Amino acid sequence: MSLIVQKFGGSSVANAERIFNVADIVTGTYKQGNDVVVVVSAQGDTTDDLIEKAKEINPDASKREMDMLLTAGEQMSASLLAMAIEKLGCPVVSLLGWQAGFLTSSAYGTARIKRVVPDRIKKELDKKNIVVVTGFQGVNRYNDMTTLGRGGSDTSAVAIAAVMHADLCQIFTDVDGVYTADPRKVPGAKKLKTISYNEMLELATLGAQVLNNRSVEMAMKYNIELEVLSSLTREPGTIVKEANKMEKMLISGVAKDEDVARISIIGVPDRPGLAFKIFSKLSAKKINVDIILQSIGHNGTKDISFTVGKSNLKDAIDTLTPYIEVLGASSIVHDENVAKVSIVGAGMESHPGVAAEMFEALFEANINIRMISTSEIKISVLIDRADADRAVTAIHNKFFTPDQL
Amino acid sequence: MSLIVQKFGGSSVANAERIFNVADIVTGTYKQGNDVVVVVSAQGDTTDDLIEKAKEINPDASKREMDMLLTAGEQMSASLLAMAIEKLGCPVVSLLGWQAGFLTSSAYGTARIKRVVPDRIKKELDKKNIVVVTGFQGVNRYNDMTTLGRGGSDTSAVAIAAVMHADLCQIFTDVDGVYTADPRKVPGAKKLKTISYNEMLELATLGAQVLNNRSVEMAMKYNIELEVLSSLTREPGTIVKEANKMEKMLISGVAKDEDVARISIIGVPDRPGLAFKIFSKLSAKKINVDIILQSIGHNGTKDISFTVGKSNLKDAIDTLTPYIEVLGASSIVHDENVAKVSIVGAGMESHPGVAAEMFEALFEANINIRMISTSEIKISVLIDRADADRAVTAIHNKFFTPDQL
Repeated sequence: MSLIVQKFGGSSVANAERIFNVADIVTGTYKQGNDVVVVVSAQGDTTDDLIEKAKEINPDASKREMDMLLTAGEQMSASLLAMAIEKLGCPVVSLLGWQAGFLTSSAYGTARIKRVVPDRIKKELDKKNIVVVTGFQGVNRYNDMTTLGRGGSDTSAVAIAAVMHADLCQIFTDVDGVYTADPRKVPGAKKLKTISYNEMLELATLGAQVLNNRSVEMAMKYNIELEVLSSLTREPGTIVKEANKMEKMLISGVAKDEDVARISIIGVPDRPGLAFKIFSKLSAKKINVDIILQSIGHNGTKDISFTVGKSNLKDAIDTLTPYIEVLGASSIVHDENVAKVSIVGAGMESHPGVAAEMFEALFEANINIRMISTSEIKISVLIDRADADRAVTAIHNKFFTPDQL
Repeated sequence: MSLIVQKFGGSSVANAERIFNVADIVTGTYKQGNDVVVVVSAQGDTTDDLIEKAKEINPDASKREMDMLLTAGEQMSASLLAMAIEKLGCPVVSLLGWQAGFLTSSAYGTARIKRVVPDRIKKELDKKNIVVVTGFQGVNRYNDMTTLGRGGSDTSAVAIAAVMHADLCQIFTDVDGVYTADPRKVPGAKKLKTISYNEMLELATLGAQVLNNRSVEMAMKYNIELEVLSSLTREPGTIVKEANKMEKMLISGVAKDEDVARISIIGVPDRPGLAFKIFSKLSAKKINVDIILQSIGHNGTKDISFTVGKSNLKDAIDTLTPYIEVLGASSIVHDENVAKVSIVGAGMESHPGVAAEMFEALFEANINIRMISTSEIKISVLIDRADADRAVTAIHNKFFTPDQL
């Protein structure tokens, strides 16, 4: 008998029919003799609908009241799923975040799980109940409702799996696994049987919206085996686990991220400390900077370019513009029509030729590279957004031939 | 500075415009220097919509999961109202039943408030916050969500008013006060300035759906002054308070109740204990019996008639039918086409002529009386349902002439 945590996203419980599909998966797992904890998101567009309703009343509503409103979403889906499980004849109980012991920080809207006290969950499992828990939510030290931010239900599921020492944490989503590239865009994309936590993290960061990043970090930290799979196909998905448990693949995937903008500060004097000043200003505003490139300029000046998320572009420009003169730089420019394309793979550490192959693929496709960034298991290039899909396909075809998988 | 509890029903917060109307009333009260606790129901048809959603999935869902589902309704309306109050520039915090300290029995769907521990409410009022509390809900000793049954938000409001020693508890509803008869049916119906708890209780029991009965009982027990008023007209409503604080009116109202059915057991032998046996069987099934009439029959038998709520009719017939033979009675018959019309008034105790006047009004309108029941402040008659509206008007005209109010 195993303890299995199963998480279902909003599209998996969007209507009565899909709720029964989920109830069928859950009770099937239970009837095989397993203890089952189910983590559920709000139904379909519920969260967006509630946000819309709030905006109609007060676009500047406090985050505390927003969280009070939004947590009702999972409350409804959790109780409806429990009713469907009752209908299928299995004992079940639904629990809200606070009942399930999710203690979080006080940052309404983006709270972090500080601790899970699973006493109630344990008690219900001891009674042989299936336990349905509302994802995405918890309670802070004031006993106020908090939400974990978008994708937070994944984190809820992994947190329960970690604290309960679950044997497996299954993340049911609307894709059936992790692919070597976006299967809707790249015809030859293949589903991976396994992927390491680190590779998954890089892919998530790069815009492959399969798993929430924090949930993968947490799974890695507590060594929880994750499975990403679809609630509709009922086929094995992709297992995310420790790298040393698997054979290292050269490349595990190609990903594209269009939520990126490039900012360049032109003509920065070539003096020490100026780069620090620029990035500390951004850091103070909590603006994350990704690729950074410093080029040799003319007459003892240099150009500093970097990328930020699109939503931070305006803020970053507004923050830096007043300092351009102070820095002695000549101007600040930006470009939103860019995209980041990356390859990820635990195997590339020991294969120095990977970068060259990637650049060759782009050259052959006549795609110009604007910036390059590398890490031990990732190589990213910044290119024109118009070229992004072609770039992904070109790189994917370079690394993935049918006999390689 | 006073502490005022204001309760708003579902129609008062049915949409964004109405929510702002409520926010305006609340902030107006607050700006006059009062501490304000607001109790709010779910928006418009939310509760019915949720019940519909549950039925689609499982018509026999457990009451525990139903309560988990339904309590989301007030959570949404409370947070939305808080956002509207924020928009109007006043400090506010919304609290769920469990956060506000509503400890209830475990009877899901019809839980009773056992205790209100208002520590959090007090703390928020000390911070000069307006406090919005979800009505209709609480938490039981298992820390599970419970609901108080229909009309439970009134009870929530009075319970807070009682435990906080509020100066006034205002129940905002879609009528603007308590009337001498249903104003939609009886043209001469007048709004009462005041009414005693006991009279209000009798009227509520009789189907004047203005205030939930349990809330009036609780207000009487803790001597909380209630005001029934409309959130739309903004005019003074009807004050419900202790009888000795007001001049006793002869009659305070005429009410009609069509949710009633008559059952007669014909030919019961005239032996002691048989009536007891009949009514103890009904009591065991928790079927409330209202008017009871025992008539002299023929040949040492009698007929026992009584009324029950329509929803209990089938159950009552099913319960008693097997015993008809055992009792030695000849048959059991029933009639659903009846209505109960009553007059209520604290003044009638000392005016023995009231009953006669009521019967005279019915005689003049050529309406046949089937059964009669009286208490110290109430006289009820059972008549054909087709005559009910005419009866109310006839009786109302008899007691209420323009100069009497």
